[in-house]
Amino acid sequence: MERSKFTNESVNLEVLKQRAFNLRWATIPEGVIPLTAADPDFPCAPEIVEAITRYSKERYFNYGAASGLTLFNESVANFFNVKRGIPASPDHVFPVDSAAFGIYVICKAFLKAGDEAIVFDPVDFLFRYSVETVGATAIPFGIPQQEAVNFARLEELITSKTRVICLCNPLNPTGKVFTKQELLQLGEIACRYNLIILSDEIWSDIVFAPSVFTSIASLNPEIRKRTVTVTGFSKSYGLAGLRIGAVIASNKEHYDLLMAASLHNSTIHGANTLGQVAAATALNECGYWLTDFLNHLHAMRDFCVNQLNTLEGFHCIAPEGCYVAFPTITATGKSSSEMHNFLLSKAKVAVVPGLKEWFGEGAEGHVRLSFATSKGILEEAFSRIQQSLQ
Amino acid sequence: MERSKFTNESVNLEVLKQRAFNLRWATIPEGVIPLTAADPDFPCAPEIVEAITRYSKERYFNYGAASGLTLFNESVANFFNVKRGIPASPDHVFPVDSAAFGIYVICKAFLKAGDEAIVFDPVDFLFRYSVETVGATAIPFGIPQQEAVNFARLEELITSKTRVICLCNPLNPTGKVFTKQELLQLGEIACRYNLIILSDEIWSDIVFAPSVFTSIASLNPEIRKRTVTVTGFSKSYGLAGLRIGAVIASNKEHYDLLMAASLHNSTIHGANTLGQVAAATALNECGYWLTDFLNHLHAMRDFCVNQLNTLEGFHCIAPEGCYVAFPTITATGKSSSEMHNFLLSKAKVAVVPGLKEWFGEGAEGHVRLSFATSKGILEEAFSRIQQSLQ
Repeated sequence: MERSKFTNESVNLEVLKQRAFNLRWATIPEGVIPLTAADPDFPCAPEIVEAITRYSKERYFNYGAASGLTLFNESVANFFNVKRGIPASPDHVFPVDSAAFGIYVICKAFLKAGDEAIVFDPVDFLFRYSVETVGATAIPFGIPQQEAVNFARLEELITSKTRVICLCNPLNPTGKVFTKQELLQLGEIACRYNLIILSDEIWSDIVFAPSVFTSIASLNPEIRKRTVTVTGFSKSYGLAGLRIGAVIASNKEHYDLLMAASLHNSTIHGANTLGQVAAATALNECGYWLTDFLNHLHAMRDFCVNQLNTLEGFHCIAPEGCYVAFPTITATGKSSSEMHNFLLSKAKVAVVPGLKEWFGEGAEGHVRLSFATSKGILEEAFSRIQQSLQ
Repeated sequence: MERSKFTNESVNLEVLKQRAFNLRWATIPEGVIPLTAADPDFPCAPEIVEAITRYSKERYFNYGAASGLTLFNESVANFFNVKRGIPASPDHVFPVDSAAFGIYVICKAFLKAGDEAIVFDPVDFLFRYSVETVGATAIPFGIPQQEAVNFARLEELITSKTRVICLCNPLNPTGKVFTKQELLQLGEIACRYNLIILSDEIWSDIVFAPSVFTSIASLNPEIRKRTVTVTGFSKSYGLAGLRIGAVIASNKEHYDLLMAASLHNSTIHGANTLGQVAAATALNECGYWLTDFLNHLHAMRDFCVNQLNTLEGFHCIAPEGCYVAFPTITATGKSSSEMHNFLLSKAKVAVVPGLKEWFGEGAEGHVRLSFATSKGILEEAFSRIQQSLQ
């Protein structure tokens, strides 16, 4: 049964067309349905707006603390303790102006020119981009959708220059949720070669039963002490425009390196206070909303996967996490880019092509579709795609 | 006559003690008066809160545009056209998450390792810090409070490695407002040596008659085409916590370099949408509020300068702009740091010591006091300072 907050009627297209950028409603030709950037089409939880309104009513927006508001740091630490089994300290947490910046700051803190970092393939471009922006080299580690993770291959990629393994769990764009056993193997390798684990957990709330999410830092103290965890609030709570994420260090030494890399103490960078208030409210008060959102997404995942598998030349494995489907389309005879162009012009549906620049070489032959929208919009999109392909 | 919005009663100390960080109310021992960071003690204009509330009511905080919201870019361009006489195009404006980041981005775009930039002395540490963070060298150009600007000396400092002149106008911490004649001379030198002018105008609304503010980019097209202007909304409107500023390029070539340096297109950096809404509202609707604030500040400047000049060993020149007083204290026999410690412990008043790390070498022998507060708080502060020095 569809829950009340995630009905067709709850999507406000008029507002989305003004506000949803990054390849979405506000940036595409009228009439096109964007299943592009992973950004929900639904309004956020009302408690978040109430908190923003309450905070704003006092009319004071003074300088926030470089290390973050106590409310924010405590909410994040509490979440990781209670929900993720990580003994996180508020003193080792700080807000960042996006999970993207968090990834970049971790790379900046632990990589220098000439160093190497292991980056999954396919995976969101931000890992390679951040590694390269700080002057290091991204070494791609293939994680194909239908194969077991090849840890022997991972070990072969490690050299004397390797400093960091970039873990994206759940893995955008394939939706893979790493098992505890896989994470233990990865962590063991990181320990053996004395590597930092960058654990991007921005998708960790979006996991479909029976899959279960595990934070790698929760496994054991040896793994935890070399892990820096990063998360954000855009995927679970729709707060991308507020630009708020969090970095969770395991110890003071890492925290100090990360804070220095962030430039927060200079005020050059920092996280706005309203975003911190919004994120703390999401964590403390909006669990019920997230549960409802996840239930809706689970149904939409099943619907999308079924629909995709009826399309000739498409094959889609059900993602275990993330709200994106990542079908292979090689049997259509079209490249990712050709399929993107075809669907945009013939079906008026925008998808993300599986280009190297977006997701690495392993993405070729795929397209990515977000399903964080209503059943009605997905039905319309697939009806158009069906017709266009006939 | 004191205006209604800036009375003693309008300062809400309870909220400030929770929210005003960066060396202010929320960070100091109970009972201390912080005349430290330049951040107003008054609530912001109600129209700003109304706009935030209106925007939030829709409950959509999707990804904003990397290049900024149209509302923001147009408001900023219009402000520079109408109030500053710069033919700014919305296409060459973008939001940044603080004026501090704007300064840094300009340095990143136009300086590489080994280059040199002219940085005033004394001036806010962010200039030297940004220049050095991108690997270039900051060459200090002394601008003593009571002397004419020595442009012959400026020219002597320029070498084959010089790329940028960092102009801070009005000049924090001395409050100097550069005359049109001075700016013409500075601009002429920049043209002759083919230098970029970084014009930080975050203080440009806070100028006390008969001083008049001039944007250097308004002088002539030759100067404009080599100028990048940066501003923010924390000084005029009290929005530091929302982290919002703007960069105004003069042409597409500069704009493209600056956007690339900003990393906005990757989403690693960006400006939150609520901050953009707040800033646009400030520019479009809160001129009346700023006028009242400036009237109050003018009276507070006169009060502070008079008070400071009654203190033995202090000498204070009335600042032409900025809401900080910057007295010399050398005749007291104390260093900046000693005076800071003395006032904090004996008078329970926090000021900013004139340390090299904060303002450059030219700041030694001074302390800086912010007067963006109520008459009542300033009276109490000076009463305590008077007593402590007796």
